[in-house]
Amino acid sequence: MTGPPGYLALDVGGTKIVGAVVGTGGEVISSARVPTPTGRGAEEVFSACVFALEAARSETAISALGLGVGCGGPMKWPSGDVSPLNLPDWRDFPLRDRLSDQFDVPVRIHNDAICLTIGEHLMGGGRGLNNVLGMVVSTGVGGGVVSDGRLVTGASGNAGHIGHVVVDPGGPECSCGGRGCLEAVARGPAVVAWALAQGWRSPEPAGESLAAAARDGDQIARAAFKRCGNAVGIAVASVVAVLDLEAVVIGGGLSRAGDLLLPAVYEGFERHAGLEFVNQCRVLLAGSESGVVGAAALFLAQDQYWNQGY
Amino acid sequence: MTGPPGYLALDVGGTKIVGAVVGTGGEVISSARVPTPTGRGAEEVFSACVFALEAARSETAISALGLGVGCGGPMKWPSGDVSPLNLPDWRDFPLRDRLSDQFDVPVRIHNDAICLTIGEHLMGGGRGLNNVLGMVVSTGVGGGVVSDGRLVTGASGNAGHIGHVVVDPGGPECSCGGRGCLEAVARGPAVVAWALAQGWRSPEPAGESLAAAARDGDQIARAAFKRCGNAVGIAVASVVAVLDLEAVVIGGGLSRAGDLLLPAVYEGFERHAGLEFVNQCRVLLAGSESGVVGAAALFLAQDQYWNQGY
Repeated sequence: MTGPPGYLALDVGGTKIVGAVVGTGGEVISSARVPTPTGRGAEEVFSACVFALEAARSETAISALGLGVGCGGPMKWPSGDVSPLNLPDWRDFPLRDRLSDQFDVPVRIHNDAICLTIGEHLMGGGRGLNNVLGMVVSTGVGGGVVSDGRLVTGASGNAGHIGHVVVDPGGPECSCGGRGCLEAVARGPAVVAWALAQGWRSPEPAGESLAAAARDGDQIARAAFKRCGNAVGIAVASVVAVLDLEAVVIGGGLSRAGDLLLPAVYEGFERHAGLEFVNQCRVLLAGSESGVVGAAALFLAQDQYWNQGY
Repeated sequence: MTGPPGYLALDVGGTKIVGAVVGTGGEVISSARVPTPTGRGAEEVFSACVFALEAARSETAISALGLGVGCGGPMKWPSGDVSPLNLPDWRDFPLRDRLSDQFDVPVRIHNDAICLTIGEHLMGGGRGLNNVLGMVVSTGVGGGVVSDGRLVTGASGNAGHIGHVVVDPGGPECSCGGRGCLEAVARGPAVVAWALAQGWRSPEPAGESLAAAARDGDQIARAAFKRCGNAVGIAVASVVAVLDLEAVVIGGGLSRAGDLLLPAVYEGFERHAGLEFVNQCRVLLAGSESGVVGAAALFLAQDQYWNQGY
């Protein structure tokens, strides 16, 4: 523990877990990525987290001042008992306490979409801006908002749920109990399910093979990405109108199909972003390290991003 | 100028102008209301403003510390040259400078929907809460947001444009250039136009007669208010999901038909507000004095509400 100061950071997703060491300036010094174990119990997932963090730390000699974590919701916040929708092995898993015992440093946990937003605001496409929406379009659709220079918390710490902006009032039922939410239309499994319902067939009906089919010119697959991107664009236009944003940054699994998705996002956004101040907002793809940078920023820029009270 | 301190306040709408004197605690001491002159030029409108303010002031002996103004947008903010959509006689009218010359006090102008939001947050249905949306549903549809205890400004001072949240992606074109915006569906003239297109007839086809017809049981008129209220409820559900709000307060001309509108607002909101934190948000009607209270609050609670920078 005699190296220069820095932070440990962890990004826990449904398909991968990233551990990282982040310097005091927000730069990623080292990182390690492991697949998320599924169906093998809570301890296996926790062990994978420890492994990823130790692997990242073993490459450096920093003295960790804290460990920031991004994890799928819902969670008890800020206490950090997590029950991620995309990680059924963890239900009320006391992630903060377990990590704190393991690494003997202070631990702060926030929603993974919030961490992506923070990372993009601090070091990515939202750098230097005061009004930014970050989005994760993946197994679910989440987000976070920086408004007038501050991370928005909301009444119960739930601000940022762009997945439940209504994009199609008569559209599909959403797992939230509502109808026509962005998440019900644009989450990865919904995009695949829509393509299958339209007649698309694949030995491996998942997002990756749908993207491959779309790139090969399959019309149903292309229509599926168009429908997803249009829905994202509609939701973005609505939120930009209310919050007068400068940039929207999109990450998550589906953003890896940015070539297919982004033109449709722009199309939906342009059709509905009539007001000049709305239309001028930039829509970008997130960088791949934003999640861990944002998790570390729960410490390294805590005045801006760790608003437990206000 | 030897009386107790207080504030002048002005609320300029498309149909009426309200002048008021507001005490330092946010209480309305006196007020005067005049119809808005239309089609008789910019100076006639300005004279009506001066008349309303003088009439309110003549009933009290306060020493005015400032004059706060709510006015329809767009406007150059904070310089206060106004071009209200609902007031064609004013285009780039230098309202702040003219009022400052006339009353010899500092003048601050903000959007009328922002002032309503501020007034409801300070003294009305949003009092004591930190996360509130205020809405004006009238000739246009506007709004304002208090988030984490602060009025949201946005990148260009335009935050709060809930009228341009998309509620029906395939719906009517909006004057903003977009499509299916809340304003295109729910503004008063659009509600009347929809009823007329469905076959409703009236010697005086306006909001008041449509409301009277609905109260008399006219099915088209009832359907028109239902459609309007449902659209408001959809937009409210979307914004509450993103901002995790505690209360939404609705004012403006159409709120005078609250008996017809509010059940439909609740219906639309309930259908789409699936998440528990969204569903728990209260939806209320605004009080009649919120506009002038909020205008005065641009001075009397300036730390919270007059965010020219942040």
